[in-house]
Amino acid sequence: MPPFPPARPGDPFDRIDTPALVVDLDAMERNLTAMATFAARAGVRLRPHAKTHKSPLIAARQIALGAVGQCCQKVSEAAVLIEGGVRDVLVTNQIWGTAKLDRLAALARQAKVGVCVDEAANVDALCAAAERLGATIEVLVEIDVGGRRCGVDPGADAVALARRIVASPGLTFGGLQAYFGTAQHRRTPAERRDAIAAAGQAVRTTLEALAGAGLVARTVGGAGTGTFRHEAASGLWNELQTGSYVFMDADYALNEPDPDNDAPRFEHALFVLTGVLSARGADRAVVDAGHKALGNDSGFPVIWRRPDLSYSRPADEHGAILVSPGGSRPAPGERLLLVPGHCDPTVNLHDWYVGVRGLGSGRDGCHVECVWPVAARGAVL
Amino acid sequence: MPPFPPARPGDPFDRIDTPALVVDLDAMERNLTAMATFAARAGVRLRPHAKTHKSPLIAARQIALGAVGQCCQKVSEAAVLIEGGVRDVLVTNQIWGTAKLDRLAALARQAKVGVCVDEAANVDALCAAAERLGATIEVLVEIDVGGRRCGVDPGADAVALARRIVASPGLTFGGLQAYFGTAQHRRTPAERRDAIAAAGQAVRTTLEALAGAGLVARTVGGAGTGTFRHEAASGLWNELQTGSYVFMDADYALNEPDPDNDAPRFEHALFVLTGVLSARGADRAVVDAGHKALGNDSGFPVIWRRPDLSYSRPADEHGAILVSPGGSRPAPGERLLLVPGHCDPTVNLHDWYVGVRGLGSGRDGCHVECVWPVAARGAVL
Repeated sequence: MPPFPPARPGDPFDRIDTPALVVDLDAMERNLTAMATFAARAGVRLRPHAKTHKSPLIAARQIALGAVGQCCQKVSEAAVLIEGGVRDVLVTNQIWGTAKLDRLAALARQAKVGVCVDEAANVDALCAAAERLGATIEVLVEIDVGGRRCGVDPGADAVALARRIVASPGLTFGGLQAYFGTAQHRRTPAERRDAIAAAGQAVRTTLEALAGAGLVARTVGGAGTGTFRHEAASGLWNELQTGSYVFMDADYALNEPDPDNDAPRFEHALFVLTGVLSARGADRAVVDAGHKALGNDSGFPVIWRRPDLSYSRPADEHGAILVSPGGSRPAPGERLLLVPGHCDPTVNLHDWYVGVRGLGSGRDGCHVECVWPVAARGAVL
Repeated sequence: MPPFPPARPGDPFDRIDTPALVVDLDAMERNLTAMATFAARAGVRLRPHAKTHKSPLIAARQIALGAVGQCCQKVSEAAVLIEGGVRDVLVTNQIWGTAKLDRLAALARQAKVGVCVDEAANVDALCAAAERLGATIEVLVEIDVGGRRCGVDPGADAVALARRIVASPGLTFGGLQAYFGTAQHRRTPAERRDAIAAAGQAVRTTLEALAGAGLVARTVGGAGTGTFRHEAASGLWNELQTGSYVFMDADYALNEPDPDNDAPRFEHALFVLTGVLSARGADRAVVDAGHKALGNDSGFPVIWRRPDLSYSRPADEHGAILVSPGGSRPAPGERLLLVPGHCDPTVNLHDWYVGVRGLGSGRDGCHVECVWPVAARGAVL
């Protein structure tokens, strides 16, 4: 871990060292409330995805607002969440290998733990781990609802796996995992609506096949920040797994908004504060945030409230700032707030959140309220 | 930090958890020796760049083989290196802001510390920090030798900055920083040779201007793994700052090799071991290494010794493995070694190196010799 944090509680905004992962606490809290309110009104459970924030402290705020627990991607993330007080965690992936399965089963003795499967052999391995550790693990059958990544085909294959789970000591059949990742970033509302309508057909087919076998899916989970309104309205999904809404990012901002007025709107709450370290050309400067401070996989960051500037040419620890004609070139030592292209991998690069208050009214008067560890940063196992 | 490491010393290869950052120690040691031997024969100093490995343990091996010290990009990296026993560190960047400058000056009381400048005001700020802390900081004038990133123009501007450094209490003029980053990845030997020839002209102009002012550049530093032979042969540069040679990556492997037989050849020594978590289609599988385990900014990883497989469609924690016609689809639970597209940001995502012996002769008989922390991982400040 780096030898010092970028700020201390009470610091004025201008004393935050760069690059730093800055959270606008006011905006984050509005985002948390907006999603919690939406889920309550829609009558669906909310299980936010911790792969975005990797923080038991933020998880606790989501749960205090009504979330039933957390999703995560990795067993090591589940371990951090459970150690941090979360009592109900779903690993939204397949887990293989004795070491990982034993860790998962051990966690299932400390908290309610769920996991996804799409292979019969994986059910058997989970069963063996649960029996070795004397644990009970909830298992969801993942179905492929269009993403062509993990998951069995809808219908009979899912029923066969569910039967196998039901017959396995130490496992309980939790229901279906029906997540359509690539639909989240389709740009028009109609594309997103149509994708989830098709996914819903796959869910319906599978629920009917399960019912025919006398099986009930207690949970039908899925949805992300781009499509959750459609899953919630479907009458099929009953648990939303949205993650990015807590912070939003520049890529999600490229989605055309849903047309109806009651759709919750989320604000950018996550930034990378960066400093200018060189400005030799008339129309460019160099900042101290590159690939090691920003997740650039879904596009480069946008420079907050500076439409005259754009970010480009990232290297490991540098990025170029290009100045539009008529724009104002930042000077060495000046600092800029970047809205990351993709919040999840950006968070994973940093060890601390610097939580600030009052950013909405500008940097003057804004101060550091908290410095939180990104507790599950690097938890890839 | 994640709650458990991916392996323990003595583990057989098959017990390493995934995804894990695996170092082939035999190959790494050959790379270290090849570069040290080259620098000694060429009569130039070697100051490897720690931004690649972020490890005082690897730095110590480089120094034991003759390196004069280390380069790094950030003050926080310098702090980790110096705490880990490195006695001579050059920050190959401009550093601004009182907090960072004071940290830099404090480190300069513990070890020999250098830094780069390209602005007069930055010289003054460095001088003030050195005086506040009672430290001596070596300062190199960075010149732009073609990368159009940081650095003053060659010639008179560099002389003006050097004069200012000489006149500043607490600072010593160390010479020139003349690094041409984008030349490293030009694909043909002729392109790389011509780029460094042009950069050499900028260095020569500046050295002559310095001499006219009665100033001597003790150090002319630069070069990376793609071009170091040209800098070494120029008679102008006397300190090589190569980093990636220690591990190599898939992007550097796309450079056409230099034609002469005495050019050192480096081997892939760094891998991400990944496990298959789902394999539903006939021609594809899904592995547990995505953007949070791999630096994909310079291209996707190559799958080691599996030309029938390719990596694509990375998500946060997933990657797709595509099987060529006639190839063999890996099964769930199977593990693959990925050669990262870009080693530096990949290393920065992991907390541990899993050092293995005997990988060259295959996985059987290969075992874990050491688990080293990536000590300066996340050191972005």
